[in-house]
Amino acid sequence: MTLITGFNFIAGGRSANGSVTVQSVDATSGEALPYSFHQATEAEVDAAARAAEAAYPAFRNLAASRRAEFLDAIADELDALGDDFIAIVCRETALPAARIQGERGRTSGQMRLFASVLRRGDFYGARIDRAMPERKPLPRADLRQYRIGVGPVAVFGASNFPLAFSTAGGDTAAALAAGCPVVFKAHSGHMATAEWVADAIVRAAGRTAMPAGVFNMIYGGGVGEWLVRHPAIQAVGFTGSLRGGRALCDMAAARPQPIPVFAEMSSINPVLLLPDALKARGEQVAAELAASVVLGAGQFCTNPGLAIGIRSPEFVAFLERFTALMGDQPAQTMLNAGGLRSYCHGLENLHQHPGVSHLAGARQEGNQARAQLFKADVSLLLEGDELLQEEVFGPATVVVEVADKAELIRALRGLRGQLTATLIAEPADLASFGELTSLLEQKAGRLLLNGYPTGVEVCDAMVHGGPYPATSDARGTSVGTLAIDRFLRPVCYQNYPDALLPDALKNANPLGIQRLVDGVGTRDAI
Amino acid sequence: MTLITGFNFIAGGRSANGSVTVQSVDATSGEALPYSFHQATEAEVDAAARAAEAAYPAFRNLAASRRAEFLDAIADELDALGDDFIAIVCRETALPAARIQGERGRTSGQMRLFASVLRRGDFYGARIDRAMPERKPLPRADLRQYRIGVGPVAVFGASNFPLAFSTAGGDTAAALAAGCPVVFKAHSGHMATAEWVADAIVRAAGRTAMPAGVFNMIYGGGVGEWLVRHPAIQAVGFTGSLRGGRALCDMAAARPQPIPVFAEMSSINPVLLLPDALKARGEQVAAELAASVVLGAGQFCTNPGLAIGIRSPEFVAFLERFTALMGDQPAQTMLNAGGLRSYCHGLENLHQHPGVSHLAGARQEGNQARAQLFKADVSLLLEGDELLQEEVFGPATVVVEVADKAELIRALRGLRGQLTATLIAEPADLASFGELTSLLEQKAGRLLLNGYPTGVEVCDAMVHGGPYPATSDARGTSVGTLAIDRFLRPVCYQNYPDALLPDALKNANPLGIQRLVDGVGTRDAI
Repeated sequence: MTLITGFNFIAGGRSANGSVTVQSVDATSGEALPYSFHQATEAEVDAAARAAEAAYPAFRNLAASRRAEFLDAIADELDALGDDFIAIVCRETALPAARIQGERGRTSGQMRLFASVLRRGDFYGARIDRAMPERKPLPRADLRQYRIGVGPVAVFGASNFPLAFSTAGGDTAAALAAGCPVVFKAHSGHMATAEWVADAIVRAAGRTAMPAGVFNMIYGGGVGEWLVRHPAIQAVGFTGSLRGGRALCDMAAARPQPIPVFAEMSSINPVLLLPDALKARGEQVAAELAASVVLGAGQFCTNPGLAIGIRSPEFVAFLERFTALMGDQPAQTMLNAGGLRSYCHGLENLHQHPGVSHLAGARQEGNQARAQLFKADVSLLLEGDELLQEEVFGPATVVVEVADKAELIRALRGLRGQLTATLIAEPADLASFGELTSLLEQKAGRLLLNGYPTGVEVCDAMVHGGPYPATSDARGTSVGTLAIDRFLRPVCYQNYPDALLPDALKNANPLGIQRLVDGVGTRDAI
Repeated sequence: MTLITGFNFIAGGRSANGSVTVQSVDATSGEALPYSFHQATEAEVDAAARAAEAAYPAFRNLAASRRAEFLDAIADELDALGDDFIAIVCRETALPAARIQGERGRTSGQMRLFASVLRRGDFYGARIDRAMPERKPLPRADLRQYRIGVGPVAVFGASNFPLAFSTAGGDTAAALAAGCPVVFKAHSGHMATAEWVADAIVRAAGRTAMPAGVFNMIYGGGVGEWLVRHPAIQAVGFTGSLRGGRALCDMAAARPQPIPVFAEMSSINPVLLLPDALKARGEQVAAELAASVVLGAGQFCTNPGLAIGIRSPEFVAFLERFTALMGDQPAQTMLNAGGLRSYCHGLENLHQHPGVSHLAGARQEGNQARAQLFKADVSLLLEGDELLQEEVFGPATVVVEVADKAELIRALRGLRGQLTATLIAEPADLASFGELTSLLEQKAGRLLLNGYPTGVEVCDAMVHGGPYPATSDARGTSVGTLAIDRFLRPVCYQNYPDALLPDALKNANPLGIQRLVDGVGTRDAI
């Protein structure tokens, strides 16, 4: 049984210099758990960032295969966390054990996938333009480019995935894969969980002889500001609220040296219900959509918060069925009291909005979240009403009825940036609504056809990103292997002898990777 | 002969609603040229941004081969600009005709290179993860990813490359290649040049049937702020001063929807003179370095503003020779009066600094820039003195002598981010100073061995970027084909039928491009 110390993780050691402590809480009962955590002092935050900075030169220069060993070792350590670990995560988050077991596998799988990316080598982006000494009027020098980690990365985990988007989550995995040491700010909602996972990472770092300081973790409220402002930190990964994410972006932009922040923030994930699909399988769609809305108490970044249909008898029938189903959902315990408060606040705003009517859901009271269905007037979308565009984090959704295809397109134009946009459609719908894809591409990072956005596959092709305010930078993803790109920057070598070049750029191509040589992709030596 | 109208370029038409005009100036004489330009009104800036926004859906959805035709057509139009065009550029910039002829070729070559990138197709970043319907516990959906243009881009050109970094320069080429319409803010230093080039782009757009609004250009002071704050603009490219670039970054970060700014700003491009190289060819190095410092009146982003050597008889000999050469350079006319004023101001700061002594250069007076050589105490680097790190744009450089290798490394640690870092070294030096490369990688975007940083090849492997303040985002380059990445974002399709997918992601791979399919790079159909 692992002992919870409540100490900050700095440079492979533990530190508890501060006198402020924060308590872990049972998410279901609201009672204090017997674990308290030492809020990092400013000096400890500095020490953590400095430790990451000190580890950076050695860590980034390790062969990618060595970093892959480290990620694989983390994966093994995570898989080895047993039932007592699962029990603690469940107590801190009120998530069911089966979900946490699955998430543990997702998290270790993510680490192993990044290890495979490191071995595959396409992340290097290796490019070689050979010298042309005879070129007129001027010769061309030998030029070679690959990518290196940007430097120490600060990561802020999410409450809703205590494993997969937290201490050893996607941002940490991507940063470590890129060769960037990490300072992780433990989420206040699952600090004991965080300590177990940080222990696992530190054990893996020890087993694979990584530099001390490759991973650090700090506890406490407000300590994140020190971290983001610290000169050693070169990039930030964040998953959470729009307000929190934007605050970090503003802080990072105001530094003497501004740094990029990759914040995944707020999305209402519109689902468009097209007429032939509702005709063919309206009941089924109602059941599937309701299940997606209430899954995990609606606490997913890709929770469908908006469903749009076209005025028609089949939409009326769908809505009737959907209303009945949404009224019939059991209450669920949320991740923490703050989340429930925020959910109640979001519902209240919807209830009070004159353009919004309440269709289903028991009165929200007590310490569990109740599923809620609202209907909003299309004018709210057409006029860019702020409220409708705000994510209500929890098991609630809003339907909007549009008059026809032209109004649908106008309504979609009014949408802000999204993580996902979904079409529920039959082939006949796709023939009549073909132009929707082009419009939705401009609004979202992932387009789904006849699926539901909850469920984000960790793979090469995934995009978990999108235009603001879904994220702070639409050019990134925080799930899937492309996430590593956020933490890499290109470096070019001009006229370097083969022996001094990194392996990825040597003539013999000792890593056997795909490279762009004189404009042609190849794995050949040169 | 093209008529200079002085009108703004909006949506393929011309507009001159404002009453404020700005005058083009002969860079050599300082006299007004007979061309005046209508400063854009706020409504015209809005119209230009809206035109780009309106063009975006059609332009980005064009087959990449169609955009390639457009870029090739621009290249042809640029090549066809004749002697009267060259004469105007020379008058506006005081640059010699041979340089401008060469730069014209570089600019058209850059367009053609991006056209080849569009035909090659690697910019798509195509990734396919096929469905795994039998996977347990949950099936995997078919997921496919490629990249699209981010939206309309605002480009601010540089004074020092009136063609290659201006109206039809690298940022414009990269944005258009990515499928992003451009609003270009004409540089006040060469507005007649800008009009000729904008005319060429608009002719090319007409010939290749591009949407009106694919390229727009506005004139005037202060109008750039409206542009960067305009909601239609989704990214900014800038080449210029640290102050100007940072102001745009701050503006973009403070928008309701923050957008990325790729600003190439300030670099002193250190050159490290290692002992064996100075022993073997100190005289030659002195001559080459002096030529690089004064090339084009020192008006290059990659001008070597700092040379560091190790205390030794060979460094004394080098410095003697270098001092003599720098004292012997002819005065040169700068690009404009503002540039000369700024150069004089930079020199004055160096003259007045107690840690800096003046080694060579005639007293700076008159309307031409005189080459200057200074020597700074190493303590300025060790203590992070701001002045030494500031780019003095013009034919001046500073030498620093360090006691030994240990001090050299400490001095390099104190350097801010750079576009380039150069080693002048013999094989014996590389053996003794091997660790410098690793340190310099953290400081610069391009490392050169036995070359000089002036001369930035346009190719696949080039990185013209680097950590702040060299640029605002070390993850980009503003020269070379990787520049297109700045203006692309990934989109993912889940469970889309083949017919609705973009060509880049269709099973048959009709574009014949390299794709990552189930984790393996291939050009095969699936």
